[in-house]
Amino acid sequence: MTHSYDTTSALRAAEHVDPARLLDSIDALATIGARADGGVDRPALSALDIDARRGLIERAQALGCTVSTDACANLFFRRPGNEDLPPVMTGSHIDTQPTGGRLDGAYGVLAGFECLAALADAGVRTRRPLEVAIWTNEEGSRFQPGAMGSSSFVDPARLAGYRSVRDAAGVTFGATLDAHRAAFPSLDTRASGAVHAFIELHIEQGPLLELADTPLGVVTGIQGVRWHSIRCTGAAAHAGTTPMRVRRDAMTLAVHVRGAIETFALELGGDAARITFGSWRVEPNSINTIPSAVTFTVDFRHPDPAVLASFDAALADCIAQHRTDVHLEPLFEHPPVHFAESAIERVRAACVALGARSQPIVSGAFHDALHLAKHCPTAMIFVPSRGGISHNPLEATDDVHLVSGTRALAHCLVELCNEAR
Amino acid sequence: MTHSYDTTSALRAAEHVDPARLLDSIDALATIGARADGGVDRPALSALDIDARRGLIERAQALGCTVSTDACANLFFRRPGNEDLPPVMTGSHIDTQPTGGRLDGAYGVLAGFECLAALADAGVRTRRPLEVAIWTNEEGSRFQPGAMGSSSFVDPARLAGYRSVRDAAGVTFGATLDAHRAAFPSLDTRASGAVHAFIELHIEQGPLLELADTPLGVVTGIQGVRWHSIRCTGAAAHAGTTPMRVRRDAMTLAVHVRGAIETFALELGGDAARITFGSWRVEPNSINTIPSAVTFTVDFRHPDPAVLASFDAALADCIAQHRTDVHLEPLFEHPPVHFAESAIERVRAACVALGARSQPIVSGAFHDALHLAKHCPTAMIFVPSRGGISHNPLEATDDVHLVSGTRALAHCLVELCNEAR
Repeated sequence: MTHSYDTTSALRAAEHVDPARLLDSIDALATIGARADGGVDRPALSALDIDARRGLIERAQALGCTVSTDACANLFFRRPGNEDLPPVMTGSHIDTQPTGGRLDGAYGVLAGFECLAALADAGVRTRRPLEVAIWTNEEGSRFQPGAMGSSSFVDPARLAGYRSVRDAAGVTFGATLDAHRAAFPSLDTRASGAVHAFIELHIEQGPLLELADTPLGVVTGIQGVRWHSIRCTGAAAHAGTTPMRVRRDAMTLAVHVRGAIETFALELGGDAARITFGSWRVEPNSINTIPSAVTFTVDFRHPDPAVLASFDAALADCIAQHRTDVHLEPLFEHPPVHFAESAIERVRAACVALGARSQPIVSGAFHDALHLAKHCPTAMIFVPSRGGISHNPLEATDDVHLVSGTRALAHCLVELCNEAR
Repeated sequence: MTHSYDTTSALRAAEHVDPARLLDSIDALATIGARADGGVDRPALSALDIDARRGLIERAQALGCTVSTDACANLFFRRPGNEDLPPVMTGSHIDTQPTGGRLDGAYGVLAGFECLAALADAGVRTRRPLEVAIWTNEEGSRFQPGAMGSSSFVDPARLAGYRSVRDAAGVTFGATLDAHRAAFPSLDTRASGAVHAFIELHIEQGPLLELADTPLGVVTGIQGVRWHSIRCTGAAAHAGTTPMRVRRDAMTLAVHVRGAIETFALELGGDAARITFGSWRVEPNSINTIPSAVTFTVDFRHPDPAVLASFDAALADCIAQHRTDVHLEPLFEHPPVHFAESAIERVRAACVALGARSQPIVSGAFHDALHLAKHCPTAMIFVPSRGGISHNPLEATDDVHLVSGTRALAHCLVELCNEAR
């Protein structure tokens, strides 16, 4: 049997996206781990996460999908294709920050489910299978680092190290994986494998689309990041008895170093620079004792590798100027990721085909797509975040934008599913 | 029987101070609660504190003193006088900070004991009784506030409130008072009462005497203090997705406010000003989230009430400039205390009589003498702190200074004990 795969099937799939069904599914998932303030607290592989997964497994099976899992508790909901070819994937995560919102991650998964349902309603058959994935522990709130599921899918050797990581209660990630396996004994276990393309739909989590009044973002990549911890040391002394001229106040030094770093970060990076000093620890942290040590974190992000390299050099110079009193500990870094042009073009074409305004955008946050991009052609679609707010119970996106994003996703998934190679 | 009380008895008492006995007693007390790093950790009314008190009670009884306690577990070691007149008191405290040193408080108590022994050795009889006091919970580390013993001696109405205060383990101060009473059932319980004068000998806990190479400080008073908590609010947002121009970073605001306060504090207070921002709490304190709120403390001290008032006004102006984003919570204040000229003069005269160099000094730290000054003519003697270090296992004073301070204490205690009125 041969099929012709024309562009009308992508449009029909997009048209069959059902706004009420999509929004109802978002509401329903948000009840699992609902916070009194309207937010969601659903830790990775908690009983709440398992509940949520159980409901989605049942829904996928009702849609005629096969469901499988892997060694990192990722779930794969597969709609068969006409040919035995690597699938097109979409999806995201359903774990949340402790004070998380309803959309971060969940939106991408539920939009994927809406695409499965829309394709069924539209009677669209595709050349390739379509898979919706739930990636485990993207947030990194319960187990560090984040994105364990997607990163171990791409690089299975990472899993052994992840298994021994403990949460705040001392439970290992490995034990939660075993419990997940036991909770769903009938699921097939699969290995990683070839993927034709991965498209992740996500809220922007920033204000750029809203500020530009643009409903859809064609994400071209993810900016690079440097995370450092800086420790400034002084000498504890009595606040009442120690004259100012003989003090060695670690906070005075830390404030000076913070200011210097901020200045050169903005000079080097311009408008695209993001510099944040988010976490502070002061010792002994007593009202009447001069601080003896202050440790603070630096989060610098930029899409340009050359700027990141200049920042590294300037930071090294800055630390060297305070050789004995300021110490730098690099915590993490990731180079900028540029998504595959072929995948980006599919997202842009979907926006055009649907008559939706879009603009290119670089992701400021990490996503599972960061890892998938090493495995297969990958791109993302963003919808606006109201007020740019995320990781917050106030996280929100206008319904019309949630629907537009899902229609764009449906369109480009079908087009990708029908690619011969 | 009549006595003549000439100045030779004060000199004889000072000469009979025994350096080896004094230093041995300091070494012995430092073994109770000794830390591996050379410091001392002896929480107020802990089993260690009770052990230490038991040893001092036995020593006082061996010296022929009567020992009594009161409703706040203060201990009074009384050497009788020839006449039934209010006593002269000295003493300090033997509780320590968790990472405390060997001398803070303990030195003043043990120097008082050395004076009791020196008077006995010298065969000196005094007109008035001499009492050495151990004041309970001066540090305020286990139970807040500090100086519960001396403040309730001066104002017994405070005790009822203190009794319900709990330590970190949930034990009430009242329960520890009852346990103390049960530990020493044979001691008489006394009420407060008239005191002729109080002299407290203490390490400076600051660097001024050492910097000036002066062995003895004649303490003229205790500087005034203002404690405030300042809360700066912003908006939490994602470090990667939020452009700099739309951020409301609470730490950026807090650093600005800290700088403004420091500037006017030093302009108003000059060399005598002490401004410290010791305790900081950042929310949510996450490496990749812009701080939404920063709370920090202000400790401002000055000996001049006019400067303290000017500081209050400038602080109010500063807060008013950031009406919605910066909030001030006053935590504590105490006016400057000026000791009684009569008592200060006795200390100065003792230094002169002993040929010891001295200088006037204002105490930067609080002491039990702060409270006693409301009750009777009060003064203090300081000896140098090596490197100005205190509340620290490295706390140290040269032996020769420890002895000089004790000789000066013995001299002025005898002179005060022999005052007719």
